[in-house]
Amino acid sequence: MTAKPTFRGAEAIVGLGAVEQRNRIASGALRAEELTEACIARISATEPELHAWAWFDPEHARAQARALDAYRGTGQPIGPLHGVPVGLKDIIDTVRIPTANGTALDEGRTPEQDAFVTAQLKAAGAVIMGKTVTTELAYLHPGPTRNPHNPAHTPGGSSSGSAAAVASGQVPLAVGTQTGGSLIRPAAYCGAVGFKPSFGRIPRTGILAESPSLDTVGVIARSVPDAALLADVLFGHDPADRATSPAPAPRLLESALSTAPLPPVFAFVRPPHWELAAPETRDALDEVAGLLGEQCFAVELPPAFDEAQAVHRRIYSAEMAKCLHAYERRGRDRLSDVLLEAMDAGKAIPARDYIAALDWPDVLYAGLAEIFTRCDVILTAAAPGPAPLGLENTGDAVFNALWTMLGVPAITLPLLQADGLPMGVQLIGRRGDDGRLLRTARWLTDHLTRIEGGA
Amino acid sequence: MTAKPTFRGAEAIVGLGAVEQRNRIASGALRAEELTEACIARISATEPELHAWAWFDPEHARAQARALDAYRGTGQPIGPLHGVPVGLKDIIDTVRIPTANGTALDEGRTPEQDAFVTAQLKAAGAVIMGKTVTTELAYLHPGPTRNPHNPAHTPGGSSSGSAAAVASGQVPLAVGTQTGGSLIRPAAYCGAVGFKPSFGRIPRTGILAESPSLDTVGVIARSVPDAALLADVLFGHDPADRATSPAPAPRLLESALSTAPLPPVFAFVRPPHWELAAPETRDALDEVAGLLGEQCFAVELPPAFDEAQAVHRRIYSAEMAKCLHAYERRGRDRLSDVLLEAMDAGKAIPARDYIAALDWPDVLYAGLAEIFTRCDVILTAAAPGPAPLGLENTGDAVFNALWTMLGVPAITLPLLQADGLPMGVQLIGRRGDDGRLLRTARWLTDHLTRIEGGA
Repeated sequence: MTAKPTFRGAEAIVGLGAVEQRNRIASGALRAEELTEACIARISATEPELHAWAWFDPEHARAQARALDAYRGTGQPIGPLHGVPVGLKDIIDTVRIPTANGTALDEGRTPEQDAFVTAQLKAAGAVIMGKTVTTELAYLHPGPTRNPHNPAHTPGGSSSGSAAAVASGQVPLAVGTQTGGSLIRPAAYCGAVGFKPSFGRIPRTGILAESPSLDTVGVIARSVPDAALLADVLFGHDPADRATSPAPAPRLLESALSTAPLPPVFAFVRPPHWELAAPETRDALDEVAGLLGEQCFAVELPPAFDEAQAVHRRIYSAEMAKCLHAYERRGRDRLSDVLLEAMDAGKAIPARDYIAALDWPDVLYAGLAEIFTRCDVILTAAAPGPAPLGLENTGDAVFNALWTMLGVPAITLPLLQADGLPMGVQLIGRRGDDGRLLRTARWLTDHLTRIEGGA
Repeated sequence: MTAKPTFRGAEAIVGLGAVEQRNRIASGALRAEELTEACIARISATEPELHAWAWFDPEHARAQARALDAYRGTGQPIGPLHGVPVGLKDIIDTVRIPTANGTALDEGRTPEQDAFVTAQLKAAGAVIMGKTVTTELAYLHPGPTRNPHNPAHTPGGSSSGSAAAVASGQVPLAVGTQTGGSLIRPAAYCGAVGFKPSFGRIPRTGILAESPSLDTVGVIARSVPDAALLADVLFGHDPADRATSPAPAPRLLESALSTAPLPPVFAFVRPPHWELAAPETRDALDEVAGLLGEQCFAVELPPAFDEAQAVHRRIYSAEMAKCLHAYERRGRDRLSDVLLEAMDAGKAIPARDYIAALDWPDVLYAGLAEIFTRCDVILTAAAPGPAPLGLENTGDAVFNALWTMLGVPAITLPLLQADGLPMGVQLIGRRGDDGRLLRTARWLTDHLTRIEGGA
């Protein structure tokens, strides 16, 4: 495996990207079955080393693809993801397909209902390719997945399989979730685009709840427009998820492909605990900021942001202690020490402190909003460095938890490298302004690629 | 004071009701100043005994009324409450007017911003008549207000002044709030219509937060259409109150005045702790159910509802411990024992138990939703009996807390009496179906009045 996967022969289809695949299927130039077979071939070739899938059955994928081709043949209108394979993190419920939440306690669990996002994908015509590996109950204890760029390194977690599967070309798109840094971090470590929308945009009904004040669904893809294509299908309102509310269709792909009226402006933020950033991360970010010239200015977060990590921890562990309580009751001895420690810490938190912690995100966001009056997006690092060596640890979410807690949209772009491993540039947008974030992310990708090509 | 206030001479205007007052002002048949003067006269006559107002300045009211009359004279479009006086519970912020939250700790506090509802009222052309007495921090420790039907009895709490002022004819409309039974109970005790809308319909920005999962703004009036008129103005979406969401204009007055396609069906519910209902309450409710004949059937709530009171208490005291913490810090010695006891109990609640309690409302509502497939509204008692004797206790919210916690719309109608004191029939609607509740409430009022008139 190489830093940028190359696709030859039949596998060339795999390298096209989701938007192009979707367009070709819609125009009749490509059949869903061809694309699905190409993905299956790629999975066969890479999965023995990668271990990205918790459940994968090629026949199940083929049957969907054939049915979708037959449907298209009738001439009826097709959905926006017609025939495009998608991987789902194995905490997202899928009817008749096992959803094991990364724990032996849920082995063989087959949900009776699809998650909201699963239903949306099916309605959009996607091929549900299978379930991707997650960490234990989406917390820290790792699954078997390896980093596609170097199998000795972690892929990150908890959306480990989704990130590895997309980055290695097994599927063009995958769905993940983030409560701390569970989507941005693995996407950055594996060299994919990871997009965590604003909190409350993608309903979480039918997805394992770990911390409802923080849990956010997101997407992993190989380009910004591909991520937007998938997110467009997942955004929505579900009365069963109180965090969501009725809103017009987001038109994210349209935004991602649009041109800003003015060149975008970036605020370069060195977040709290920047001392944990590896020298190569600092250098790379400084370089990106430098390349942006007058379009980028450095800004310091107000001192209150130093509390963010502790507040995030308080909310996370208190809610986890409640949400995962049933697992503890069913089999405490089958849960990892790292999970039990967090849950036990959560149990000790008084309600008053927990409720007070819930006020912090809005207080801190007021500080960010001021910064956003002067820029389009915040520019920062996706992780302290490239994927750490070893599989027993999924890396550090220190540069993600803050943004998750604030509910702001975040995206990581695989624009940096160190020692043959990818690193991510993370952009942060205003709450609810996901379209501008994607537009700016595409602009930055094009801009840096142009400079690289010109150099 | 009598059970049904009679209005003579200049005060006759006061007896018209808000919809009629509004219509006359809009048509030019009545001036805002005349109506305001009539209310001022009524307040002068009754306030020495009633003590309904925490802040009242006749000059302030007159100035608004004169300005509104002058504005109407310009021929420009006027708002839906143009010239109608409204009382505001003294936990609702009013700029340049003291808002003391019922505690000496906030004596002389003058907010810098209007509450959302205050701003809505001003935009609608209402005359802000003054601030009505509340209990200490909207909890149980009573204010000085007396029951307009018998000054030896409590008016109920915590919207004590709002209920007493409306029931006694001092103002046609008032705003109150309910966290346990703080709006329905005083309205029932004072013989007014009290309407507590579905949770999340009226934004609470700028109103003292006691328990954000439960705090609900509502209205007090002398008829169902009057309540609908006021609620129409207050319903809305404020991003600063996450419980609210964008929704079309509710058109509650239109609903309240409309005729149902079929005669409404009532489910008669004897809620948990029905043994606390006084014999006169049970008899009166049985009689109402009997008068409805085949339009009413009795139904038992599932056993899980027996937990509701304890769950409500857990949420309430945990959130109160957090929300009122600053008051405790500023002057614990100036807070009542009953408040401190509740806060101390709240402090002892672990976060996990609190978060688990928050799941209950939806679980219980599923049981109610089943009942609502077979009826338009639930029929029950507003309180265990008429207003208790004495002023040191505001009565029992045992028949209100459940409905508050479930977020369902509730209304009390002053259709019953015992020993010269009013009692309320409480109707409960489906979540979000406030219009149907009001329509059915008006139907029931007309129906029982017709029967009474015919008998």
